[in-house]
Order: sequence, then structure tokens, then C-alpha cells
Amino acid sequence: MKFCSQCGHKVTMQVPENDNRLRAVCSHCDTVHYKNPHLITGTVPVAPDGRILLCRRAIEPQLGLWTLPAGFMENGESTIEGALRETLEESMVQGENPRLLSLISLPQWNQVHVFYRISMVNFSFAPTEESTEVKLFTQEEIPWDELAFETVEFTIKHHYETLGKNDTVLNTEIYFNTNQNS
Amino acid sequence: MKFCSQCGHKVTMQVPENDNRLRAVCSHCDTVHYKNPHLITGTVPVAPDGRILLCRRAIEPQLGLWTLPAGFMENGESTIEGALRETLEESMVQGENPRLLSLISLPQWNQVHVFYRISMVNFSFAPTEESTEVKLFTQEEIPWDELAFETVEFTIKHHYETLGKNDTVLNTEIYFNTNQNS
Repeated sequence: MKFCSQCGHKVTMQVPENDNRLRAVCSHCDTVHYKNPHLITGTVPVAPDGRILLCRRAIEPQLGLWTLPAGFMENGESTIEGALRETLEESMVQGENPRLLSLISLPQWNQVHVFYRISMVNFSFAPTEESTEVKLFTQEEIPWDELAFETVEFTIKHHYETLGKNDTVLNTEIYFNTNQNS
Repeated sequence: MKFCSQCGHKVTMQVPENDNRLRAVCSHCDTVHYKNPHLITGTVPVAPDGRILLCRRAIEPQLGLWTLPAGFMENGESTIEGALRETLEESMVQGENPRLLSLISLPQWNQVHVFYRISMVNFSFAPTEESTEVKLFTQEEIPWDELAFETVEFTIKHHYETLGKNDTVLNTEIYFNTNQNS
């Protein structure tokens, strides 16, 4: 952020009164601009036969790798509504009965990922603008080496570890290894 | 948002290509500005004798009412780190053993509230700049009619309903009644 979104003047980084962090502050209109973590919401769609659905990413980052349907939560929706919307947008899957499955913080990305286990109402799904391929996998078929994100890997593992146990939520944090720059 | 935070030019509200929502878009530098929900993280601090800690708010909104320690999650921290930081800042309580207790969406406020049950390491607590009074309450003593927020009420109730049951997370949504404008 270089300019004030309220008045258009240049902002400077300073610690506001009664605060202890550097913020972008506008000395013209006195607005303090806060930057906060983003919420990503998604699902583990479970087909009527127990297989789970993955999407092959049509967009960066991690283009070509497999992921769970997920995306940025929008204003005006709940975490569940966002997760079901993203699932529809990315895989054309109609889901129901969402149950909280994982809440994973990514402090270095300023993100929090929330995943729900959902039941697919039938076997309908299809590729979309965001997914070149959408497919059901048994546990043995999961392409562990081609998953797009660590939160997806953690969440899928937690799905299998907790099958049949309701209300068991994975709550953890992921830090990337700065040596690997990934 | 009226001006582009990247180049300072005026933004206009439009639906960007491959999108379906109105965004603030800068026609000068082509930046799309997204607005997303904010995360609030907090705790139910449980004293060694089982009483829980509440803070009387020293600041608006809901000045003078009782609340659980909570606040906006900051970049660079996890939900747990944010919750423990806010607890320290608002009540001088040192907490440990955080367990996810509630995840509550507030679509009309563009907020998601996440609360953890934590154990106070001892009986130390104190008022702060954000809390005029900090106090321990038994279940019978909870000032239900003087709680600052519905998410606080829901979370305290869920705390008592699930005592001794680990990993039972309340996941719900709260919509305000537009007739009451509150």
C-alpha cells in the first residue's frame, strides 16, 4: 500500500497511538490502514461410494497439481457458504451436510484455511474454468506427490484418520522451510 | 475505498473479467482491490478452580459490557497465537493448552470469530487499557444480560455444554435482526 484508499494521498508506515505495530497511516485524513490475514474456505467432497473428489488446477499457483475445491472467502457469506460456493465453482459439485474438518493457520502467508467434509448429493461433477480435470479417488489412489498445497495434504489425511468420528477438527499451523523457499 | 492504494488514482466499482462480483478496480494501473472477511480470535480463559475470566470493555463498541478477551488477528501470527496475544493484552492472563471451541461466521459484519478454551497457568490477571475490570465468574455468576456480543454468549454456553468433551467445536452463523438494527 502506497496511497490512502480514502483520500489518495501518500501513506507512511508508522506505529499509531495506542498501537504497537507498523501500519500504513495517512497523515492527510488520519486513516489507519490495517492488513489482516485472509480466510480460504474449501471442502473434502465425499461421493456416495466414499471416494473423495479432487480438482486439477487450471490456474496458478500450482497449475496442473491436484487440490481440494477451495478459495478466498467473500464478504457477506459464512465459512460454510463460501466453501460450498467454491466447490460448485471449481467442480460443479452440489454438496450437503458440511462438517468442520480442519482449521490451519499459515502465518507466513497471512492465511487461515478452513475445510469442511461434505457429502456429494450424487455422482455429478465436471471440469470448470478453474479445474482442467475433476476426478474421484479412493484412499489408495490419492496422488500424494501431486497435491498442490500442504493444507490439502493435511486435510485429506485428517479426513481418513477421523472417518466415522464426528466433530474431530484438525487445528494446526504450517510454517514453510525458508531454506527451500517453498 | 475511493482511491487505488497502489497508484493513488480513483477506483471504480466493476466486475473484473472472469469474476462475478463488483470490485474496486483501478483503470490506471489495472489493480483489482478485494475486500474479504476479518478474523477475530479470542479465548475462554479457565482458572485453576474452573471459573472463567471476563473483561469489562474499556472501549467502544459495547463499552462497559462484559466480553471474552478477543481481537483482530494480525498478519504473521496463527489463530492460536492471536488468541493468546489478545488474552494477554486485555487481561494480563498467561494461557496454555488452547483447544478450539467455536468458529462463528457473521456474514453481515464480514467477520469470523474463532475462540479457544485455554487454561490459565495461575490466578494472575489484571485490568488493562482495554478492560476497566477483569474478573472470574462461576457458571451461576455469568452476567448473561451484560455480555457485549452474541458470539461471546454462544461461546460461553458452548464451553459449559462441552466441558470434559474434547474436540467438540461449535460451528455456526449469526445473522442480526435488521428490524432491531443491532
